[in-house]
Amino acid sequence: MTNSGLLTPLYGADAVSERLTDAAWIEALLAVEVALSRAAARHGLVAGEDAERISAAAARSDVDAVALAKAAVEGGNPVIPLVRLLREAAGPAGAAVHPGATSQDIMDTAIVLLVRRAAEPLRADLRAAAEAAAGLALAHRDTPMMARTLAQQALPTTFGLVAAGWAAGLDAALRDLAARVDALPVQFGGAAGTLAGSSPAVADTLAELLGVAPQGVPWHTERTRIGALAGALGVAAGACAKPATDVVLLAQTEVGEVSEGAPGDSSSMPHKRNPIAAVTARASARRAPGLVATLLAAMDHEHQRGAGPWHAEWATLVDLLATTGGAAARLRTCLEGLEVHPEAMRRNLRTDTPDVGHAAELVDRVLAAR
Amino acid sequence: MTNSGLLTPLYGADAVSERLTDAAWIEALLAVEVALSRAAARHGLVAGEDAERISAAAARSDVDAVALAKAAVEGGNPVIPLVRLLREAAGPAGAAVHPGATSQDIMDTAIVLLVRRAAEPLRADLRAAAEAAAGLALAHRDTPMMARTLAQQALPTTFGLVAAGWAAGLDAALRDLAARVDALPVQFGGAAGTLAGSSPAVADTLAELLGVAPQGVPWHTERTRIGALAGALGVAAGACAKPATDVVLLAQTEVGEVSEGAPGDSSSMPHKRNPIAAVTARASARRAPGLVATLLAAMDHEHQRGAGPWHAEWATLVDLLATTGGAAARLRTCLEGLEVHPEAMRRNLRTDTPDVGHAAELVDRVLAAR
Amino acid sequence: MTNSGLLTPLYGADAVSERLTDAAWIEALLAVEVALSRAAARHGLVAGEDAERISAAAARSDVDAVALAKAAVEGGNPVIPLVRLLREAAGPAGAAVHPGATSQDIMDTAIVLLVRRAAEPLRADLRAAAEAAAGLALAHRDTPMMARTLAQQALPTTFGLVAAGWAAGLDAALRDLAARVDALPVQFGGAAGTLAGSSPAVADTLAELLGVAPQGVPWHTERTRIGALAGALGVAAGACAKPATDVVLLAQTEVGEVSEGAPGDSSSMPHKRNPIAAVTARASARRAPGLVATLLAAMDHEHQRGAGPWHAEWATLVDLLATTGGAAARLRTCLEGLEVHPEAMRRNLRTDTPDVGHAAELVDRVLAAR
Amino acid sequence: MTNSGLLTPLYGADAVSERLTDAAWIEALLAVEVALSRAAARHGLVAGEDAERISAAAARSDVDAVALAKAAVEGGNPVIPLVRLLREAAGPAGAAVHPGATSQDIMDTAIVLLVRRAAEPLRADLRAAAEAAAGLALAHRDTPMMARTLAQQALPTTFGLVAAGWAAGLDAALRDLAARVDALPVQFGGAAGTLAGSSPAVADTLAELLGVAPQGVPWHTERTRIGALAGALGVAAGACAKPATDVVLLAQTEVGEVSEGAPGDSSSMPHKRNPIAAVTARASARRAPGLVATLLAAMDHEHQRGAGPWHAEWATLVDLLATTGGAAARLRTCLEGLEVHPEAMRRNLRTDTPDVGHAAELVDRVLAAR
Repeated sequence: MTNSGLLTPLYGADAVSERLTDAAWIEALLAVEVALSRAAARHGLVAGEDAERISAAAARSDVDAVALAKAAVEGGNPVIPLVRLLREAAGPAGAAVHPGATSQDIMDTAIVLLVRRAAEPLRADLRAAAEAAAGLALAHRDTPMMARTLAQQALPTTFGLVAAGWAAGLDAALRDLAARVDALPVQFGGAAGTLAGSSPAVADTLAELLGVAPQGVPWHTERTRIGALAGALGVAAGACAKPATDVVLLAQTEVGEVSEGAPGDSSSMPHKRNPIAAVTARASARRAPGLVATLLAAMDHEHQRGAGPWHAEWATLVDLLATTGGAAARLRTCLEGLEVHPEAMRRNLRTDTPDVGHAAELVDRVLAAR
Repeated sequence: MTNSGLLTPLYGADAVSERLTDAAWIEALLAVEVALSRAAARHGLVAGEDAERISAAAARSDVDAVALAKAAVEGGNPVIPLVRLLREAAGPAGAAVHPGATSQDIMDTAIVLLVRRAAEPLRADLRAAAEAAAGLALAHRDTPMMARTLAQQALPTTFGLVAAGWAAGLDAALRDLAARVDALPVQFGGAAGTLAGSSPAVADTLAELLGVAPQGVPWHTERTRIGALAGALGVAAGACAKPATDVVLLAQTEVGEVSEGAPGDSSSMPHKRNPIAAVTARASARRAPGLVATLLAAMDHEHQRGAGPWHAEWATLVDLLATTGGAAARLRTCLEGLEVHPEAMRRNLRTDTPDVGHAAELVDRVLAAR
Repeated sequence: MTNSGLLTPLYGADAVSERLTDAAWIEALLAVEVALSRAAARHGLVAGEDAERISAAAARSDVDAVALAKAAVEGGNPVIPLVRLLREAAGPAGAAVHPGATSQDIMDTAIVLLVRRAAEPLRADLRAAAEAAAGLALAHRDTPMMARTLAQQALPTTFGLVAAGWAAGLDAALRDLAARVDALPVQFGGAAGTLAGSSPAVADTLAELLGVAPQGVPWHTERTRIGALAGALGVAAGACAKPATDVVLLAQTEVGEVSEGAPGDSSSMPHKRNPIAAVTARASARRAPGLVATLLAAMDHEHQRGAGPWHAEWATLVDLLATTGGAAARLRTCLEGLEVHPEAMRRNLRTDTPDVGHAAELVDRVLAAR
Repeated sequence: MTNSGLLTPLYGADAVSERLTDAAWIEALLAVEVALSRAAARHGLVAGEDAERISAAAARSDVDAVALAKAAVEGGNPVIPLVRLLREAAGPAGAAVHPGATSQDIMDTAIVLLVRRAAEPLRADLRAAAEAAAGLALAHRDTPMMARTLAQQALPTTFGLVAAGWAAGLDAALRDLAARVDALPVQFGGAAGTLAGSSPAVADTLAELLGVAPQGVPWHTERTRIGALAGALGVAAGACAKPATDVVLLAQTEVGEVSEGAPGDSSSMPHKRNPIAAVTARASARRAPGLVATLLAAMDHEHQRGAGPWHAEWATLVDLLATTGGAAARLRTCLEGLEVHPEAMRRNLRTDTPDVGHAAELVDRVLAAR
C-alpha cells in the first residue's frame, strides 16, 4: 500500500519493523480482546466457555488487513470493525467480546504490547553497540590520539576514553529506555474511563494475563507515559548519533584514524570506502527529534478521549521506534566492525610523549560502572 | 515488511501513499536511468541504440523490492544495486547505463518525479476542500452565528465568513505548494557535482525528457528547494488543521452548529456521532510540523554529498507527503459532507438582530479573489 | 538588549526567568570558578590563600554583562573573557584562576547550577498545581458530569475523576523532572576531557563544594543527561497542557461547567470572561516540544567539544525552562482559583441517575498514590 | 528580567534583537493605535483633532515596560493595558482610541511592523553573506580542490563551485524571505472579525498609513502567512548552516583548506584557531527548525481567536527572527573574512592534473543568475 521495504533497510530497522507490521498490530489487538474476555470471565462478568470460544475464534481468524483498514476509516480506528469481525466469528459467544471496553482500551494496550516487542531488538542493538564501544575502550585504553575541540586539534587523549564515552551514553540511554518500556501498563477504563460495567479488578487481571504492568487508574488522556517513552527514544537516538558522527569524522580521508569493517561502495567511484553504517545511523537518528516533538505536542488529549492527539500518536510512535531501532542497529554494525588505526592516531598527534592525563582511570571508571 | 495499510487509511492518505510505494520508487528510479541514457545518446555520449536497449531492459525488468532493499544497505542507497541489475539486464548495452551519473542524481530526480505524482491527489484534495469551503461560504453568506474568541462567545459573525476564512487559507496553501512542486528541477551533476564526463546540456535534455524544470546547476547539497517544499507542506497541513479544529468545536454536543455527513460510530456507544473526518484530519496535520523540522534541520549537507542529512530526507519527505495528503483528504470528506444547522447558530446567538458588520462584503472579497 | 519582560509575564514564568538573567549567569560562572580554585587548593594544586583571594575578587567584582557579552563573541563563550577579568581582579593570585579547566567545564557546571535554581519555582508550581487538582478531585469526588470523547458527550463520569487525572499527570511529570534535575552532575575534564593537570579527586571536591552530584567521568560530549532533562521538561509542559485544554473547553460559554477565579478582560468586549490563565498555560506549553527537539537533535556533539551543538544548547535550555515554568505557573493560577459549577454539570448530563461506575474508587486510588 | 544580552551576541543577532526589544514592541503598538485613529478620522468615524491628540499623547508617553508587562497578565496581552494608558493620556480624545479594534488587530499589525524592521538587518546579512560567497566563487573560479562525498575524498571540483553553491542557496533563501516579509499585511477586523463599527476602507487606509500591504480580509485565525514566514526563516537558517558546516570541516587541522580571518581563542589552549564564527552560525541555525515547527503547529487557531496558539506565536517568532538573524550575521563574518588556502587544496588533491569537469561554467551560471 505504501512504502514498506525499500527505504527501511537503509535505516537498518528490519528487526524492529517486522514487529510493527499490520499483521503484528492485528495480532496484538486480538490478543487484548481475548485476554479481556478471559479477565472478565475470571470475575464472572462473562461465561468462561464464551471466553474460550472467543480465543478459538481469534486463533482461527484470518483478518484481511487491507479490508480492516478500509473499515477503520469510518470510526477512526481499527478496533471497531475488528470487534465486529470477532463477534461474528465467535457466534453465540459474540456478546462476550469487548466486555466493558472502549476502542482506546484495546488500541492502547495493543500499543503497549507492540512497544514491548519492538523494543526487544532495539534494546539488544543498543546493548550490543554499547558492548562494542566498551570493548574498544578496553582494547584501546592506552592508545593515544588527538582530542579535537570545535573541530580543531586540541591536546592528547586516548581512543579508549573516546570509546568509553560512547559506551557511557549508550548505557545510560538503554537503562532509561528499558525502564520506560517495562513500566508501560495495561489500559482499561471503558467508554467514560470509569470502569462502569467492569471493575478495577478486571483491569488488574487483564494486566496479569498479558504480562504487563497494572494501571492503577485508566490513563486514556493522561499521556505522561507516552511522552516519557518518546523522550527516552529520542535520547537513545541521540546517544547513537554521537558515536556515529565521531566515526564519520575520524574516518575522513584526511584523518584516517578509523574505518568501517564493511564500508559501502559507490555507484561512480569504486575506490571509495564510505563509512555507510555510521552515515545511515546518523540519518536514522536525525529523524527522531521531530517525531518526539510530535508526541510531546500531542499530550493535550481533550476531555476523556483526544480528538486528534490520540490518533496522531499511532504512526508517530511506530516511526519513532523504527528509526531509533535503525540508529541502534546501524551503529551496532558500525562499532562491531570498526577498524582502529593507532598508527594514524599517533601520526596525527605529532608527539611521541603525549600527556593523556587520567584517561586510563576514567576508562576504568566507565567500565566498572557498567 | 513494516506497517503499510492498517494505519494509513485512518489518516486518509491512500491516493498519495499509492504513489509512494516501493514499486513506484523503483519505477521512478528506472525512468530516470532510461531518460539519462537517452539524454546522453542525444548528445553523442552513448549510442542511441544502447539507450533503447536499456529502455527495453527496464521495461522488462521485474525488480524484487525486498531483495533490492537488502542490497541497498551495503552502499546506503538503492541506486547502486539497481544500476547493477540494469547493467546486467541490458547486456552489451550495460556500459551505457548511468553515464556520468552519481547515485544522488538518480535518487533526487526520482524524488522529484515522485513528489510531483504524489502531490497530484494532494493538490486535488486541497482544491476540493477549498471548493467545499467556498461553497459553504456562498450558501451561508448571510447566516448569522456567534463568533467565539478564546473559546468564549464574543459578538456575531456569519458562518459564511467563517467558511470563507477556511477557503482563503486553503487557497493560499495550495497556491504556494503548487509553485514549490512545479519548480522542483532535475538533478544531474556526477560524482563531484562538476558534470565531469557529461555536460550541462545533457542535464537540460534530461529535464526535458522527464518533463521537469531544468536545474541551472546541480543542487546536491544546496537544499533550499527541499526546505521550501517542506515548509509549503507544513503550511498546507496547518491550513487543514484550522477548519478541522473548528468543525470539531462547532460539532460539540453542546454547540451543535455543524455535523459531519457521515459521522463515525463508536465501539461502545452506538448513539454517538463523532466528527471523525475532522478528528483524523487534525491527527494527520499534527504529524507534519515535526517532519518539517527534520527536513529543515537536514539542510546542512556536508561538502558535496551529505553524510546522513541526505539519507534522512527520503522517508521523512514520503511521510510528510502522506500525512499532509491525509489531512487534505480527510478535510475534503469533512467539508464536502458538512451539515450546517442555522437554527442552532441562531439559538446560540441569543439575539434576533445580530450586527454582523461587513461580513457579507468580506465573503464576497474572498470569493472574488479565488 | 532584546525583549525581556513584555512577553514573559504573559507566559507567567517570572520566578523562573528571574533565576536565568544575565546576572544569574555571571554569578553562577563566578561561583564555579571560585569553587574550582578552592577544590584545586584542597588537593594542593594551587595555594589556599590564592583561592581565597580569588573568592574575594569574585565577590567584589561587578561584571558589566553587556561588555562581557561583546567580549564573548570572540571565543564563542563568556568564560574566556570572564577568566581574563577574574585573573586581573585577583592580582597576584591570577594564575590560580581556572586551574586545569576548559571553558565547557565552567559553562556546563554553571548551567547545572542555574537549572537547579530555576527548577525550584517550576517544581513548586507543578506541585501546587497538582495539589490544586488533587483538592478538586477530593472536593468533587462524587460530582457527576458528562464524559466527552472526540468532543462529543459520551457517558457519565465525575469531575473528581477528571481532576484526579490531572493530578496524576502532574505528579508523574514532577517526579521525573525532579529526578533529572537532581542527578545533574558537575562537569570537569579540562581541555581534552582527560583531567590532565588536575584529577578526578578535584572534580569530586568541586561537586561537593557546589552541592551537586559527582560526575564519575567528564561528559563534555556525552549529552544523555541534557536530552533526558529536555524530555522531562517537555513531559511536564504536556502534563500542564492537558488540564489547561480541559479548562478552556469546560469553560466555553455553551458548556459553562467551570470558570476561572480571575478571568481576563477584553479590549473590546467588557462582558467576556476569558479563561486567560488556561489559555496562556496552553500557549507556554506549546512552545516546549520544538525546543525539546532542538536539544535532542543537538546531542551529536563532535569529538571532544561540539562545534555548534554545544552552543545551541544554552539559550534553548533557558527558553525551555522558562516556557515550562510559565505553563506550570499559569496552570497553578488557573487551578487554584478554579470555580466549579456542579449544577451546570448536572444540566449537561441530562439524567438524574448517572452511572459513574468506579469513579470514586479511582479517585481514591490516585489520592492514595500521591 | 530574563536573559537579554549575555547569550545573544554569541549568536550574533544584535542588530535583529535591537529591533525586537520591549521598547520596540511598545513603540510599534502605539504606532498602530495612532495610525488606526487617524485612519478612522479619515473616514469620519472619529474627529481628526482627536486623532492628532492621540498621536501627541503617544509621542509624549513613556510607558514602563515592566508595569505594562505585569498589567498584561490579566487579559493575556499588552494591548489591553496599553489602550487604558493611552486613553488616559489622550484625555478628552480618549474615546477615539482603538476605534472598532480588538487586541489582536493591534498585536498582529505591530508584529508585522516589527518583522519588517527586524528583517532588514537579517536581509542585509544574508545578502552580504551571499555577496561574500559569490566573491569567493569568482576569485576561486578555477582553484581546484577535492570534492568530498559522505566525508570521503571523491573526485576533483573547484572551490569556486563550492562557494557558488553557497551563494545560490543564500540567494534563493533571501529571495523567498523577502517576498514573505513584504507580503505581510495589516490586520484589522474588530472583535468578531467582521469590521463591525468600522469598514474595509478603514483597514485599507490603515495599511497605507503604516506602509504595509492591504489585507483583503482580516486574517485573525487564517495563519498561512505566519506559517509561510516561519518556513522561509527556517530555510534561511538552513541555507546558512550549509556553508558554516563546510567551513568547520574545511578548517579542520587535518584539512586546512580554509581558515577564519578572526578565529576565536580558547580559555585553555592559546595556540588554537577555532572557526568560531562558523561554529556559532551553526549553533544559531540549529535553533530554527524547532521554532518553525512550533509556529506551524500553532496554525490551528480556534474559531475567531486562538485560545493558546495565537499567544504561542509571539515569543516564538521573535526567537526565530533573532536566531536566523544570528546565523546570517555570523556567517557573514565568517565568509567576509574567510582565508582560502589553494596550496592546501592542491596538496589534498594529490594530482597536478585534476579534471574539474564543467565547474567553471557552472560557477558562471550561478553568478549570471544573481
